[in-house]
Amino acid sequence: MASSSSLSLSKALLRPTPLPSSHHPSLRLSPSLRPSPPTPPLSLRRRATHVRASVPVKTAEKATSDVALVEKSVNTIRFLAIDAVEKANSGHPGLPMGCAPMGHVLYDEVMKYNPKNPKWFNRDRFVLSAGHGCMLQYALLHLAGFDSVKEEDLREFRQWGSRTPGHPENFETPGVEVTTGPLGQGIANAVGLALAEKHLAARFNKPDNEIVDHYTYVILGDGCQMEGIANEACSLAGHWGLGKLIAFYDDNHISIDGNTEIAFTESVDSRFEGLGWHVIWVKNGNNGYEDIRAAIEEAKSVKDKPTLIKVTTTIGYGSPNKANSYSVHGSALGAKEVDATRKNLGWPYEPFHVPEDVKKHWSRHIPEGAAFEAEWNIKFAEYERKYKEEAAELKSIINGELPAGWEEALPTYTPESPADATRNLSQQNLNALAKVLPGLLGGSADLASSNMTLLKTFGDFQKDTPAERNVRFGVREHGMGAICNGIALHSPGLIPYCATFFVFTDYMRGAIRLSALSEARVVYVMTHDSIGLGEDGPTHQPIEHLASFRAMPNILMLRPADGNETAGAYKVAVLNRKRPSILALSRQKLPNLPGSSIEGVEKGGYTISDNSSGNKPDVILIGTGSELEIAAKAGEELRKEGKSVRVVSLVSWELFDEQSEEYKESVLPGAVSARVSIEAGSTFGWEKIVGPKGKAIGIDRFGASAPAGKIYKEFGITKEAVIAAAKELI
Amino acid sequence: MASSSSLSLSKALLRPTPLPSSHHPSLRLSPSLRPSPPTPPLSLRRRATHVRASVPVKTAEKATSDVALVEKSVNTIRFLAIDAVEKANSGHPGLPMGCAPMGHVLYDEVMKYNPKNPKWFNRDRFVLSAGHGCMLQYALLHLAGFDSVKEEDLREFRQWGSRTPGHPENFETPGVEVTTGPLGQGIANAVGLALAEKHLAARFNKPDNEIVDHYTYVILGDGCQMEGIANEACSLAGHWGLGKLIAFYDDNHISIDGNTEIAFTESVDSRFEGLGWHVIWVKNGNNGYEDIRAAIEEAKSVKDKPTLIKVTTTIGYGSPNKANSYSVHGSALGAKEVDATRKNLGWPYEPFHVPEDVKKHWSRHIPEGAAFEAEWNIKFAEYERKYKEEAAELKSIINGELPAGWEEALPTYTPESPADATRNLSQQNLNALAKVLPGLLGGSADLASSNMTLLKTFGDFQKDTPAERNVRFGVREHGMGAICNGIALHSPGLIPYCATFFVFTDYMRGAIRLSALSEARVVYVMTHDSIGLGEDGPTHQPIEHLASFRAMPNILMLRPADGNETAGAYKVAVLNRKRPSILALSRQKLPNLPGSSIEGVEKGGYTISDNSSGNKPDVILIGTGSELEIAAKAGEELRKEGKSVRVVSLVSWELFDEQSEEYKESVLPGAVSARVSIEAGSTFGWEKIVGPKGKAIGIDRFGASAPAGKIYKEFGITKEAVIAAAKELI
Repeated sequence: MASSSSLSLSKALLRPTPLPSSHHPSLRLSPSLRPSPPTPPLSLRRRATHVRASVPVKTAEKATSDVALVEKSVNTIRFLAIDAVEKANSGHPGLPMGCAPMGHVLYDEVMKYNPKNPKWFNRDRFVLSAGHGCMLQYALLHLAGFDSVKEEDLREFRQWGSRTPGHPENFETPGVEVTTGPLGQGIANAVGLALAEKHLAARFNKPDNEIVDHYTYVILGDGCQMEGIANEACSLAGHWGLGKLIAFYDDNHISIDGNTEIAFTESVDSRFEGLGWHVIWVKNGNNGYEDIRAAIEEAKSVKDKPTLIKVTTTIGYGSPNKANSYSVHGSALGAKEVDATRKNLGWPYEPFHVPEDVKKHWSRHIPEGAAFEAEWNIKFAEYERKYKEEAAELKSIINGELPAGWEEALPTYTPESPADATRNLSQQNLNALAKVLPGLLGGSADLASSNMTLLKTFGDFQKDTPAERNVRFGVREHGMGAICNGIALHSPGLIPYCATFFVFTDYMRGAIRLSALSEARVVYVMTHDSIGLGEDGPTHQPIEHLASFRAMPNILMLRPADGNETAGAYKVAVLNRKRPSILALSRQKLPNLPGSSIEGVEKGGYTISDNSSGNKPDVILIGTGSELEIAAKAGEELRKEGKSVRVVSLVSWELFDEQSEEYKESVLPGAVSARVSIEAGSTFGWEKIVGPKGKAIGIDRFGASAPAGKIYKEFGITKEAVIAAAKELI
Repeated sequence: MASSSSLSLSKALLRPTPLPSSHHPSLRLSPSLRPSPPTPPLSLRRRATHVRASVPVKTAEKATSDVALVEKSVNTIRFLAIDAVEKANSGHPGLPMGCAPMGHVLYDEVMKYNPKNPKWFNRDRFVLSAGHGCMLQYALLHLAGFDSVKEEDLREFRQWGSRTPGHPENFETPGVEVTTGPLGQGIANAVGLALAEKHLAARFNKPDNEIVDHYTYVILGDGCQMEGIANEACSLAGHWGLGKLIAFYDDNHISIDGNTEIAFTESVDSRFEGLGWHVIWVKNGNNGYEDIRAAIEEAKSVKDKPTLIKVTTTIGYGSPNKANSYSVHGSALGAKEVDATRKNLGWPYEPFHVPEDVKKHWSRHIPEGAAFEAEWNIKFAEYERKYKEEAAELKSIINGELPAGWEEALPTYTPESPADATRNLSQQNLNALAKVLPGLLGGSADLASSNMTLLKTFGDFQKDTPAERNVRFGVREHGMGAICNGIALHSPGLIPYCATFFVFTDYMRGAIRLSALSEARVVYVMTHDSIGLGEDGPTHQPIEHLASFRAMPNILMLRPADGNETAGAYKVAVLNRKRPSILALSRQKLPNLPGSSIEGVEKGGYTISDNSSGNKPDVILIGTGSELEIAAKAGEELRKEGKSVRVVSLVSWELFDEQSEEYKESVLPGAVSARVSIEAGSTFGWEKIVGPKGKAIGIDRFGASAPAGKIYKEFGITKEAVIAAAKELI
């Protein structure tokens, strides 16, 4: 169960360190690690992060040679992107060409990371929210010495099985933190990463040992800026005062359809100031290196607000005929224009070539990165010695190991336990788990008292109380989901949950799909999961939602029926480290059913009651969630009439599908075609379960506004309907 | 086919008018129509809309009596809301109590409408974006004399079959323009309504006859403000300079989870100024009637920008113990607090009582509304006389009648037509239809050149060119969908289309679901509909999306396979006036298949080729979209081997489901269990089509980044796989 990061941590802790034990900054700049010819420290690198430093004095000559090397490094990035896109004949060269300067400054001068352990806990996080520009990131990872992006990987850009897919994918390419491409997600993920840092720092840092301390950097473009999700997340970032979040807005005035003038004339600066951000404008992003550096320093000096650095760039910078036009955004330059760009930028090299001096310059990142990690490991060892308990907790968050016996905290229920809504039972689970899982934190999109998501022993995560674990997302579902993806992917032991009404998964589906794709263990607590919510009516009543998530890859759609099943759903959600879970929970009270169990939920589908023998019941009744009770009652009645009836809970289709054929046959024997399902949602997909001779009772229209009982009756979601259908089939 | 509004229009045009024919404003205020005792005109009512007027001189006494009556009217609204929520024991009294003053001013003093013809074309539109406060709107419609909300309807609030559902639903309650409740949708719908007005005004107004001329008013709350969709739509409203859009922001500092301080501390004013809006703050929304009126006048005077009027109110105003707290937001006050509120506001009346003087005061809206419409009808008759052609076009937009023979414009194709991507064929259809359908307009979320949505004979709808029909939405999918809902619901003859990559329906699903629920004919042009898009990879490749929409009620999911099917899809989309359509279109080229047809698409599923007899083929191969070609090729090969093979296109499951049992049996005979389906998407749901013995070939994992052909091969979406599966089954 140990994650790679936990292994690395322990390895690193054990590894003999050849490095001086002092904390003097020279540790990180020992001459042997320096590029040759040695350059003076660049303005921002290796400074104490909270001190605004003056620009170092340089001789004119040195500065010139610095600039020349930087320009060369920046052009290397540009041409790696150009060449890879050209070879693939597919991709987006424009952004890497325009953003190479800020990319260079970040990866070469500012960020702390360890190329040989991309999962080192205290690394600075970088998110390319404008994910289509992924060649920028691949080029940077390549130069910095990450094993995930070798030259052959660059040559395989966008090809089958490569580690350099068409958009950044954390699960394919170590060094990529989150999966981006769908616009706006990355900046919201970054808010989650920065939230995680602020939270963990507040919980674990000590006056003498700031063990958690990193920045989160983002590059986002005009497309991200237009997306509503970005505004949602950035409003929260401002509200929370995430001072260590630094976002670069690539202000290039071009989007796919042409000049941004055609659809995007708002003042981004005013909007971000309104959102509570510090805003800086770098007017020359094409070669204003000093301005970029100064902006980052200024951003770091503003500790109570996130910073947006608007960097005006030229998309496709360097291409004499395509720069500053949409034509350079999303397709290869073409051989002729590549040649012209080589001439224009004075680049005599073969495709994919990294000049020796650039290579040498960047080569220090491998030893330096190892030094960063080793230094931090020493710090952690000290921390562990002094703060044993906290260290153990932090370690479990870093490596994702669940405390032994954690699942014993899950509440259990008997048929005698009082009837309750599964949303309330969910809250019992959340509160029980929060005591044993140090990484559990989350909240609701302004429906905490309806979704029942408050952790009673914790306060609110807020700007001035960031150690708390109740997160107030406001009415921002999409941002909430993406922020949770960021939290989940920050550290393997963080388990974010988030909540709204089930129907409003429609607002956050983009983020939910990315949880599934990027293997982020987010727990989606989705209450009011059917017409059972009653009077709010069809806008609030999910119908097609269960089916829509059952069709989505790598996500668990769980619809527990009572207390034990709710506990089972949480057990499954926590154990599935690389799969998000959606829990569909009732607004209305449900009885605790005989036969329900945590173990049953783990199998996805199981028999809760049966009076048949020989695996040949007269009829199988299948229900989920709030309708399992109806199936159970119908079963009782049919049994009274002498029928042999099996009642099956199909709480998670995905988990059931993963069981052995033998087990599945034991629950739904192929020979029994008399099957009736009942679920207060679309029947779409149920044919697979009930077969062509069975009957699926459900709702294939929109809901209605009325008391819940009335709607159930009018829509025929009743015991009587189940009994009638069963009798027709027997 | 005539819509109710077209009938009303003709009725109204024919109706003998008892009203003076002059355009003098006194027409609308003839003393006989005035409430008694006659009150002086309120400050804003009936002014020339583009002139900023000074506050009229009143005697102190009259002003006092005015204010007293207004207060009484406002309290009537408050108590109708309180009483209805109390009787239903469900609902949201807080907003109506706080927003009653602005509601009163709007419906009693400012807005032009005809209660007896809620569909009168030139009415001012009102949208309650904070839809949970629907009792505000029901109370106003009731007072104004709309037949849809009688006292018995108020008493049936939130009950089965009532016309007063839990959130405003345009399809249930005439007088309600759009369906709201899911937050942020309404303000975006309002942007669509205002866009439609600006567009039609620019196209049809003449210097001597401004036949299209109305305002769009919205009330939105903190919840709407937090939603990303609202920011998207408001950014566009600012960009487009929608000067006749006036939004009231109910700034009450309370959301469900408590004070907005916990999650919403941004400066909304600064943000909206950044978005290009005019912003006004009414500090006393509880009884600052003059301030509200003055703000509206100011808003009307600013003609090049939409206006946000921030109105600070007290949620639950009047409730002594619950006002200004979240407890008044979403549940009944309770008998005790209702009594206390009655005492506090000096309200001696029985539940649901409208005092006589209030009733009398409001009673003028019926004759006045008739006068508005009659006056406009005269204006329209004049317009028709002078501008025959334009009038005919406008009329068809108003009544939604399609021009005779419009479908002849649809292009047709033969197998000899060159292979092409269905996204390109879609553009041929859009351009052909734009010539014959005056109400067709739309665009893409910054992917026009990928989605192929540009209308070649029109320019861009922009602030200064609003008569054009290409709408540039920017990267704002959710806002785009909701804006299109507003356009579609503005007039029955408007047919908005909007486009992005199919996978990004995830970003706009909230709006798409509301198209379906609110019966808005929006055409969703969704290209890059599978792994066939290739290198962009899994973030961009839809998998579960077809299934997810097939499960959604009242929407047509269409996946055409070639030219004729694309034309058929457009025919169906246009003809389904109360159902939105989603067209899933390929990025890659597809051949025109023998046997494909427009008529086939209209049936949803049909045989494109068959060499069997007696409705008993050896095997049936079923495909959709780009995979129909694969099925056809597999069929050819199997036939060469002597098999009798039917190839079926299942372009729309919904339409096929609606065919007669006989027809369905003729395409998919029950006796033939050897069925193979192929579709580059989730197999979820296909069991219904292929049956338990059949085989569904599809993709039940996320996609990959590589050239399309490679992915098809690696994922087994091939002719060979179909042939192998067929042979196993025969």
